[in-house]
Amino acid sequence: MFRNISQTASTSEVPAFLQKGKRTEYQRTCRLDTDNRQSVTHVIGTTLKANLSRSAPPSSKFFSVNCTPNVQYSLSPPPQETSHLSPLPLNPNSALLISMSRASQSENDSKLSVQYYGTNKEVIGKAVLYLTAIEISLDVDADRDGTVEKSNPDKGSWKWGPNGHGAILLVNCDSETTYLKKPDSESDHISKVSDLKDMSLMVLRTRGPAKLPEGYKLTMHISQGDAESVRVFRSKSSKVEKNMLQNLFSSFTKDYPLVLSREVLSQEVPYLGGEGELNFYVEGLRFPDKDFDGLVTINLSLLEPICDGIPETPIFTDKVVFRVAPWIMTPNTLPPVEVFVCSTRDNYQFLKGMNNFVSKCGQKLKICYEYMNRGDRWMQDELEFGYIDSPHQCFPVVLDSPRDGGLQGFSYEELLGPDFGYVTRVARNNDVSSLDSFGNLEVSPPVTVNGKEYPLGRIIIGVAFPTATKGRNMTQVVQDFLWAQKVQKPIALFSDWLFVGHVDEFMTFVPAPDRKGFRLLLASPDAAYKLLKRLWSDGHAQVKMFEGLENQMPRTVDDILSDENLRAENNYVQSCIDWNRDVLKRELGLDDDDIIDLPILFKLEKDFRAAAYYPDMVNMIVLGKNLGIPKPFGPRVNGRCALEAEMCSLMEALGLKCTFIDDFASYHKMMGEVHCGSNVRRKPFDFKWWNVEF
Amino acid sequence: MFRNISQTASTSEVPAFLQKGKRTEYQRTCRLDTDNRQSVTHVIGTTLKANLSRSAPPSSKFFSVNCTPNVQYSLSPPPQETSHLSPLPLNPNSALLISMSRASQSENDSKLSVQYYGTNKEVIGKAVLYLTAIEISLDVDADRDGTVEKSNPDKGSWKWGPNGHGAILLVNCDSETTYLKKPDSESDHISKVSDLKDMSLMVLRTRGPAKLPEGYKLTMHISQGDAESVRVFRSKSSKVEKNMLQNLFSSFTKDYPLVLSREVLSQEVPYLGGEGELNFYVEGLRFPDKDFDGLVTINLSLLEPICDGIPETPIFTDKVVFRVAPWIMTPNTLPPVEVFVCSTRDNYQFLKGMNNFVSKCGQKLKICYEYMNRGDRWMQDELEFGYIDSPHQCFPVVLDSPRDGGLQGFSYEELLGPDFGYVTRVARNNDVSSLDSFGNLEVSPPVTVNGKEYPLGRIIIGVAFPTATKGRNMTQVVQDFLWAQKVQKPIALFSDWLFVGHVDEFMTFVPAPDRKGFRLLLASPDAAYKLLKRLWSDGHAQVKMFEGLENQMPRTVDDILSDENLRAENNYVQSCIDWNRDVLKRELGLDDDDIIDLPILFKLEKDFRAAAYYPDMVNMIVLGKNLGIPKPFGPRVNGRCALEAEMCSLMEALGLKCTFIDDFASYHKMMGEVHCGSNVRRKPFDFKWWNVEF
Repeated sequence: MFRNISQTASTSEVPAFLQKGKRTEYQRTCRLDTDNRQSVTHVIGTTLKANLSRSAPPSSKFFSVNCTPNVQYSLSPPPQETSHLSPLPLNPNSALLISMSRASQSENDSKLSVQYYGTNKEVIGKAVLYLTAIEISLDVDADRDGTVEKSNPDKGSWKWGPNGHGAILLVNCDSETTYLKKPDSESDHISKVSDLKDMSLMVLRTRGPAKLPEGYKLTMHISQGDAESVRVFRSKSSKVEKNMLQNLFSSFTKDYPLVLSREVLSQEVPYLGGEGELNFYVEGLRFPDKDFDGLVTINLSLLEPICDGIPETPIFTDKVVFRVAPWIMTPNTLPPVEVFVCSTRDNYQFLKGMNNFVSKCGQKLKICYEYMNRGDRWMQDELEFGYIDSPHQCFPVVLDSPRDGGLQGFSYEELLGPDFGYVTRVARNNDVSSLDSFGNLEVSPPVTVNGKEYPLGRIIIGVAFPTATKGRNMTQVVQDFLWAQKVQKPIALFSDWLFVGHVDEFMTFVPAPDRKGFRLLLASPDAAYKLLKRLWSDGHAQVKMFEGLENQMPRTVDDILSDENLRAENNYVQSCIDWNRDVLKRELGLDDDDIIDLPILFKLEKDFRAAAYYPDMVNMIVLGKNLGIPKPFGPRVNGRCALEAEMCSLMEALGLKCTFIDDFASYHKMMGEVHCGSNVRRKPFDFKWWNVEF
Repeated sequence: MFRNISQTASTSEVPAFLQKGKRTEYQRTCRLDTDNRQSVTHVIGTTLKANLSRSAPPSSKFFSVNCTPNVQYSLSPPPQETSHLSPLPLNPNSALLISMSRASQSENDSKLSVQYYGTNKEVIGKAVLYLTAIEISLDVDADRDGTVEKSNPDKGSWKWGPNGHGAILLVNCDSETTYLKKPDSESDHISKVSDLKDMSLMVLRTRGPAKLPEGYKLTMHISQGDAESVRVFRSKSSKVEKNMLQNLFSSFTKDYPLVLSREVLSQEVPYLGGEGELNFYVEGLRFPDKDFDGLVTINLSLLEPICDGIPETPIFTDKVVFRVAPWIMTPNTLPPVEVFVCSTRDNYQFLKGMNNFVSKCGQKLKICYEYMNRGDRWMQDELEFGYIDSPHQCFPVVLDSPRDGGLQGFSYEELLGPDFGYVTRVARNNDVSSLDSFGNLEVSPPVTVNGKEYPLGRIIIGVAFPTATKGRNMTQVVQDFLWAQKVQKPIALFSDWLFVGHVDEFMTFVPAPDRKGFRLLLASPDAAYKLLKRLWSDGHAQVKMFEGLENQMPRTVDDILSDENLRAENNYVQSCIDWNRDVLKRELGLDDDDIIDLPILFKLEKDFRAAAYYPDMVNMIVLGKNLGIPKPFGPRVNGRCALEAEMCSLMEALGLKCTFIDDFASYHKMMGEVHCGSNVRRKPFDFKWWNVEF
């Protein structure tokens, strides 16, 4: 029952959040005073509610209301009289609801008055409100299209999925500087304008008089908890800003004052006057983790002054919610971008093989030299490549393992840089084992499991049996980090049965043209024995493995098949791999037809823990349709290695090309293979993580 | 395509979880061996899957399967032949799915064999499996009816609401002992059988041969994270147990060995043989908190031996999920059970008034004497009564405030005991202020807000404005605790404007026969001025407040009304209360008609912070329909205090009875009133917290 409704601004002038009507009505109690005229600042989109009888002169019986055109009001309860021009009866609960639809041009440019009457309708008091209307909207890219829309009604909450909403924040974990570098999030100032690209733009849009009424303030604020996760800068003024954006890639650096941080939870921000837009830049400081769900809220309040010494009262608060982008891993099915290996004193043969293979695939090999790797050749184990993504920016982020071998400095010193982020986790109490190497951290291609989609795949880690009273595990802080990223829900396999203890010793994924778009490859002693038995029954019992290798005794098929100990050890290994096979089938929704068994034998080492008996072909590097496979040095039949032949036959059926790389002396003998000795940075998924449904 | 289906046990013999078919199929890879016959232990409800070609002799072309009646099998892919009696063609993906529907009477009492044939259907190999079937179910009260049902298909997950499921755990925070007492959860043994009532019963039900095959084990295990939150005991045997339960209240204490704890994450548990039931008792160790969502998982695995020195392989895992019951507060609308006050040297007048009031209400007053309160009279502030509830047990739990005045020891020393729990939170860095007193912690009656139900009400705390750069707050650890209980989602009000800073200084709830079943009462300077103005215009300008009080100058109505400073201070106070009024309306879904303004004036003290000018009537004690209200000593008209008259008129309209208690000298002058000086333990809600919908 609004009066003056005909004078309401046309639809095009009404703020979007009013039109959509999704915002919860924000009602504020307003006091009427018959003794003093009052000035009230009203925020467009909210309602002022005044109890008419609370401040009425004691003998009041009737009232009437009058207002200027920009003001709308209604009465509660609605009066029974059809005409409102004459005084209306006052009852104890009579309330006046006041709203305005357009920002004021000047202070106090609108007015509403309530006149009170006695029994005989004689005037006995009058309360006058002078009104100043202001429009305030703190805006973000809540619809995730890369631009900051105005007054998105959903900006204050976050929802997953293609029909979801909510803005996105990146951990500013790259480094714009290369000299004395550190992740940008560790610095509380902006040294280069290019750093703004890594932050989320947030715009404060205001409309109203040239300045706020005396004593009023705009204040931006965050909670103490959120201050651990987010920092806010602003541009000095809207005009400078426009220049800035044009010069984004220039080296020209301007002053972007820090607004909110761990130290400052609340700070006044300028009101620009008229129709103003003030740009803020929000950076994430930490990834989701066990104690952080990834959501942060930023508030903007209009404060009303009371008197000196008393904190101002927030009379209106707008809020926006961001989710910090998770760290995402890339499976073998994504296209490669860079291949990394180490150069050591003794691995020339391997490097040559890798270089041939990688260049054949049209990729460039990046070599980490000895001054940096300090003799540590296990490029797979020191780090994992991933990325972070948002509608406005996407860049690779390396997860540095707490393993910390000779390659310890590589991720920070060589990889961290402009648009290349860095994150690590420090193990508690130095609780690090071989299972913390990232050969023990893999990710599946996208899967659907019992109707539940994992469009970014699932992370795979290796641990001890949960029932084991002792055993090695991936350290808890890294496990917590991986679980907290949420979009690639981890699967824990049993890898503690292996001497080195990495899942990449018995499994990998390769692309496939059919079925689910990939195959899971599993090492299989049973498959190896089957192959050897076939060779035996085909008359090749005396053909030898390991022929032509230095420091390695060749061994005949017959000898291997009659080694009862080796058979028993491999029965055990097969049961360990089968246990993992069952878990993988269940957790990835795989059929047996999605799995290929590769002929690989193991032997038990110290503590009954297993290692590959000959080069472990499953420990391969996958570059598109090309596989770089450890050369197995199997028994040669008709001039061809029977293991290579079997491997090629299995892989070629999927349109994949096998290249066998000799890693025997410098990797296999040291308990690793091609995969352990290399690392691949891959293209991010086309699929956007915020479209995952939960 | 199951064979032997006609020999399947009748439905009544099939375990419940198989009939309901809700459990995810648990499939285990099984290896066939043509060289050695194998013994396999099968768990009812799971499937063994054997690849027929993986272990077939190299030249196998056909196969056939044979089994004893208790075994069912199917073939994948299903053979095209209609008769299965003759050998079927073997292809690379042929698989055999094996299941059993009844537990074995003795080890290896069932058998399945696969025969392999060459090109001419001559027999070239045979794999034989000897099968032992075991039924295993770890059971809990997942349907929340107070008894442990068998094999509830939903026991492994937890869902809120009346259609939800999932078992419930209590923090064992009471103390069975009274001598040298401490909460039972701090002790790792059971000293009294009565303690079992506070734990959740968990039953391991097994069926099978008299003992497990050689080397097999049952093991119960939990994750490291969950071990912080839960402890598991078991009864020594099932037979002793039945006696135990009958003697539950006897003082007879038997040995209940500890199974799982912070120190032991995995332990073997006995297999009873035949049809066995073994009872376990699970106790919660901590309440939900910022770093603990309240859910714990307990696993029971069957382990298969490999050989000495190698950990056994878990071949089947059953799991159950518990949620730790939250701590729940009780609003004024719940019936009182006990009323607590302190006796001090100077509060005889107050005690007498309280005693009269409380006995009039048919309740007993519990007095905390000076040796215990050490002169601290603020019974409201040192502790908050609440309770924890489960289908099997419910008891009160006191939350001890980090305030720690003279009453510091009261909760632990006087309240903690059998079926009376205790919980506290220790502030970080001694970060405690007056806002940590629990006069600043209240709870609303049940409300519905924009369709969202809060059937247990919402917790209300007072803090500083979020925009204030400095200010007092309730300490973070208590706030975190309250939020983590989840079922009474907290609302933060602004109470830092008060000198003492407690929400009970300006608000309370009273029961009402209509509308939402309650009214929110708010202190209102405007209502007070309105009343005083009415007195003035009715000719009572010279009537005095505070008449007949010692050490207190009386003051006329006219004098108060013409005090411009007091008016300005109360305008400010009204704006602070109005701010809270708006928040409460929004967060509790209230209309103005759900709120009653009480005539109360304030004055500003040090730092512009407010205190009640005359006894603060909103700071009342509510016992059913009886209100114990601070006697206001207002202006007397016709022999009756006008403030009392107004109060009675407002409350009697709701069927409530007002009793005014003189707390002037010993409470009001010390900045507190009736509510601050008392505490009420109330009956728990009839509504069960697990039926809250999220």
